[in-house]
Amino acid sequence: MRRSDRLVCLTQLFLQNPHTAVSLSDLAERLGAAKSSLSEDLSIVRAVFEQQGLGTFETATGAAGGIRYIPGVSEAFAVDFVRRLQGELADGERILPGGFLFMSDILGRPDVLDAAGRLFAHRFAGAGAEVVMTVETKGIPLAVSTARYLGLPIVVVRRNQRLTEGSAVSLNYVSGSDRRIQTMSLSRRSLREGSRALIVDDFMKAGGTARALVELLAEFGGEAVGIGVFTATLEPEKKLVSEYVSLVDIGRMDEEKRRVETVRGTYFGR
Amino acid sequence: MRRSDRLVCLTQLFLQNPHTAVSLSDLAERLGAAKSSLSEDLSIVRAVFEQQGLGTFETATGAAGGIRYIPGVSEAFAVDFVRRLQGELADGERILPGGFLFMSDILGRPDVLDAAGRLFAHRFAGAGAEVVMTVETKGIPLAVSTARYLGLPIVVVRRNQRLTEGSAVSLNYVSGSDRRIQTMSLSRRSLREGSRALIVDDFMKAGGTARALVELLAEFGGEAVGIGVFTATLEPEKKLVSEYVSLVDIGRMDEEKRRVETVRGTYFGR
Repeated sequence: MRRSDRLVCLTQLFLQNPHTAVSLSDLAERLGAAKSSLSEDLSIVRAVFEQQGLGTFETATGAAGGIRYIPGVSEAFAVDFVRRLQGELADGERILPGGFLFMSDILGRPDVLDAAGRLFAHRFAGAGAEVVMTVETKGIPLAVSTARYLGLPIVVVRRNQRLTEGSAVSLNYVSGSDRRIQTMSLSRRSLREGSRALIVDDFMKAGGTARALVELLAEFGGEAVGIGVFTATLEPEKKLVSEYVSLVDIGRMDEEKRRVETVRGTYFGR
Repeated sequence: MRRSDRLVCLTQLFLQNPHTAVSLSDLAERLGAAKSSLSEDLSIVRAVFEQQGLGTFETATGAAGGIRYIPGVSEAFAVDFVRRLQGELADGERILPGGFLFMSDILGRPDVLDAAGRLFAHRFAGAGAEVVMTVETKGIPLAVSTARYLGLPIVVVRRNQRLTEGSAVSLNYVSGSDRRIQTMSLSRRSLREGSRALIVDDFMKAGGTARALVELLAEFGGEAVGIGVFTATLEPEKKLVSEYVSLVDIGRMDEEKRRVETVRGTYFGR
């Protein structure tokens, strides 16, 4: 293979396998190139990725060593993406009865899912998560996109115990958005004991759902290494979980003026 | 930018924006290259993609013209992926009471989601879908992955009418797996009237759920341009929908011998 062909292959291979160590010897064999040529290829790919704000590379030595692509985003990309989101969410036509905000269309768009997944993957790249966990339904696409960029599996907690999943652990909790007692459950075989999980969801108000997910994780001897939500409300300021990363925060919804107050989320610090 | 850098950029750009026309002039400006050099770059990228079974490119002329990357998979990749899936699903430990099969772990894995999404996107690349539609819950990750490779938004039909979505169209249907009457609903603003949708789900037995999705689409003046399911049961042979593409078909489940009969799905023809 010529260098030009190898560059295309390498770019594809890294983008397709984020957070996965690839050994130099394997690459050399697969691409039919000397290790020295391959090292030069890798510096080219690395330089372009870093310059384009696509992330970084890590090299580990030893038996399990190799080169690992860590997807990332530039600050400028994050700022621009969140600013556009703020604009879209500020549209008063999104206000639904009961103080809810219609977001399903946004949460279904491939560009939004991709960018949000990249932002969360960037922020939690070093958190050591082994799975991405969410609770049905609206957070699932976001969790899938985040997990893709972290190279991790997803685990979906159900709102009701399902017949089709075998024995499960259930938990009652009070959701902040309507103060009703709800049930969530996760089948025993869906999550390995002691897993470190990144929690991803579409929306946080009081944080009751997120806290319930943390408690459910504890029932599996596991631990939450981070919480990422697409949107959070400014009120109540004090949430039931101590730390979380939001992309856009939602303030006052003025039904009369058809305006929603939006500010950038805790992703950018507070 | 040097050619080597441009090749990395182009590869990333096409992989990130499947089914999206990019004009040669835009590319030339963005990468700071003459159109003639860019044409050579594109032939290199195209040749490697086609040789590696990553898909093809289409060139359209005119105002909306440009180059479009159409993700695809090689027959060998599809055969190998489905064979491995068959092996995993054949494990009798997956049999749950009531004749269900535990698949949540497989449906959460990034490699499986990615490959299944590519297979469906390849199969339905020319179907003219405008959205990928699924019904909660287990089909969602699959729909997200498929939609990503088609560059389309997803629409998630809910099992119950939700307060948070505004006015909705509901439909009662009988699910093949437990013969209960169920309800599905989709909010009016979630789907544009007259949309052409690709339906994606995790499992099909009699096809009642898929048929209900087709009927729900019709309520929006829309049309199903294809149905893709991860697994389908061999029995009943006659489904309630006329055509569907499955990856793996499930036959007899022998609880005693702890074996599940699996054959490759209709993806490969029947």
